[in-house]
Amino acid sequence: MKLRRSGRLVDMTHYLLQHPQGLVPLSFFADRYGSAKSSISEDLGIIKQTFEQQGIGTLVTVPGAAGGVRYIPYVSREEASTYLDELCEIIAKPERLLPGGYLYMTDILGHPKLLNKVGKMFATAFNHKKVDIVMTMATKGIPLAHAVANYLNVPVVIVRRDSRVTEGSTVSINYVSGSSKRIQTMVLAKRSLETGSNVLIIDDFMKAGGTVNGMMNLLAEFQANVAGIGILVESENENMEERLIHDYVSLVKLDKVNERDKYIEVQKGNYLQHIKNNTNF
Amino acid sequence: MKLRRSGRLVDMTHYLLQHPQGLVPLSFFADRYGSAKSSISEDLGIIKQTFEQQGIGTLVTVPGAAGGVRYIPYVSREEASTYLDELCEIIAKPERLLPGGYLYMTDILGHPKLLNKVGKMFATAFNHKKVDIVMTMATKGIPLAHAVANYLNVPVVIVRRDSRVTEGSTVSINYVSGSSKRIQTMVLAKRSLETGSNVLIIDDFMKAGGTVNGMMNLLAEFQANVAGIGILVESENENMEERLIHDYVSLVKLDKVNERDKYIEVQKGNYLQHIKNNTNF
Repeated sequence: MKLRRSGRLVDMTHYLLQHPQGLVPLSFFADRYGSAKSSISEDLGIIKQTFEQQGIGTLVTVPGAAGGVRYIPYVSREEASTYLDELCEIIAKPERLLPGGYLYMTDILGHPKLLNKVGKMFATAFNHKKVDIVMTMATKGIPLAHAVANYLNVPVVIVRRDSRVTEGSTVSINYVSGSSKRIQTMVLAKRSLETGSNVLIIDDFMKAGGTVNGMMNLLAEFQANVAGIGILVESENENMEERLIHDYVSLVKLDKVNERDKYIEVQKGNYLQHIKNNTNF
Repeated sequence: MKLRRSGRLVDMTHYLLQHPQGLVPLSFFADRYGSAKSSISEDLGIIKQTFEQQGIGTLVTVPGAAGGVRYIPYVSREEASTYLDELCEIIAKPERLLPGGYLYMTDILGHPKLLNKVGKMFATAFNHKKVDIVMTMATKGIPLAHAVANYLNVPVVIVRRDSRVTEGSTVSINYVSGSSKRIQTMVLAKRSLETGSNVLIIDDFMKAGGTVNGMMNLLAEFQANVAGIGILVESENENMEERLIHDYVSLVKLDKVNERDKYIEVQKGNYLQHIKNNTNF
């Protein structure tokens, strides 16, 4: 369909936002609108400038016959910092405290706009890594993993605690939960992960890191690689030497949870240290 | 930040796509770009026309002081029909057959682009209903529910089979699974659903409808209303009189599963009958 510049800008913006990370040849847009490649190039220049100005992300142009344009979603350092403050405030609400010192986060993990922001932040942190697939543990990590995967444009694979008939044959491992020291099982469908995949692990909560460590062991069974680890909320451990996982990106850090006085103390996680140089594409 | 029309079109498109269903006052855009409302109106005219031409959705303008513009994502009938054919083809692959006549769908439910299309289709089907929240059953329904909720711009609430300490106090019901006739339990966190909510139930699979029926009973406990039921794959029942649920929207219908001959027969679900008049906003 023939479209004028104004219409092209609207449609190209939509198309690029729907296809993050994918390389789109200029000829694709030229054919789509019946326009010259030079006009498409100018359109892309306008979109790139606006994306960068408005904090939407950037466009990367790959020259040559096999080239094209790629939309990279990212969150600026300032925006990330503001958002982490907001997130800390949301999580520090005393009414989140549950018996046993647990935190209620179900509402956060059920909120599409919030999840989209968090997803874009993690995508920004791992933009430079080769990620083929995002992995998480059922149930709470699932919405978070999908939000990240959406911006990285890769699929999600879900590890479960029990094996279901609808998964087909599975690989299972036993692991020791870091905080409770109990032996638990995790299970992954055999056909859900290819050998050699680069896997980004995403989870909602980490204390000693037993679950994440279990997922890493499971990846070893599949001869897959860990591309990175992203955690929404990490909990300060009394015994930090006991922590099993050291190389991870976290958004929020739980310092103190006092059940009796209904008091939660949180601070930003290590996120901002990880995105220092990530705007050089 | 002052932006020219071309930049405004890019940024407004992004903003509207990120805020489906929400009413955005014209003054919001006028302030954002330091532009006259008349220019914003013209911009919105261009965006509306392009959205409709390119099958992205539409813009609805609400006049008056409390008015503004609302982006309604929708999929046209033709696009939906084409996509249902593709979905049938994907699901009919014989390698999906698992022992016991079950179908492997984990890959489909882990694929962001596919989920987004399915989410937009369900959002189209339920655009006319008042939906406050999307409900699903853990684990497989979760990505699907989030994809729909994203386009409806509402939160998701997840029903579980077991109660977890991180959910706080819960309401649980027993129900009889329609196909296996076994008694099962489903649990919902008390604070996750408000009285009087209008709830869209989304699930990946329905046979006799026992699970969906259980969710409806659970909603009654919360004095919440069923706004609609959306099912990705429904399975033909030998005894259709036994089906517990009659008013639902399905994308794909499983007619025959022959495990011995590795043969799956599928057809489109009832989706297209449900979106007849949904383009009058």
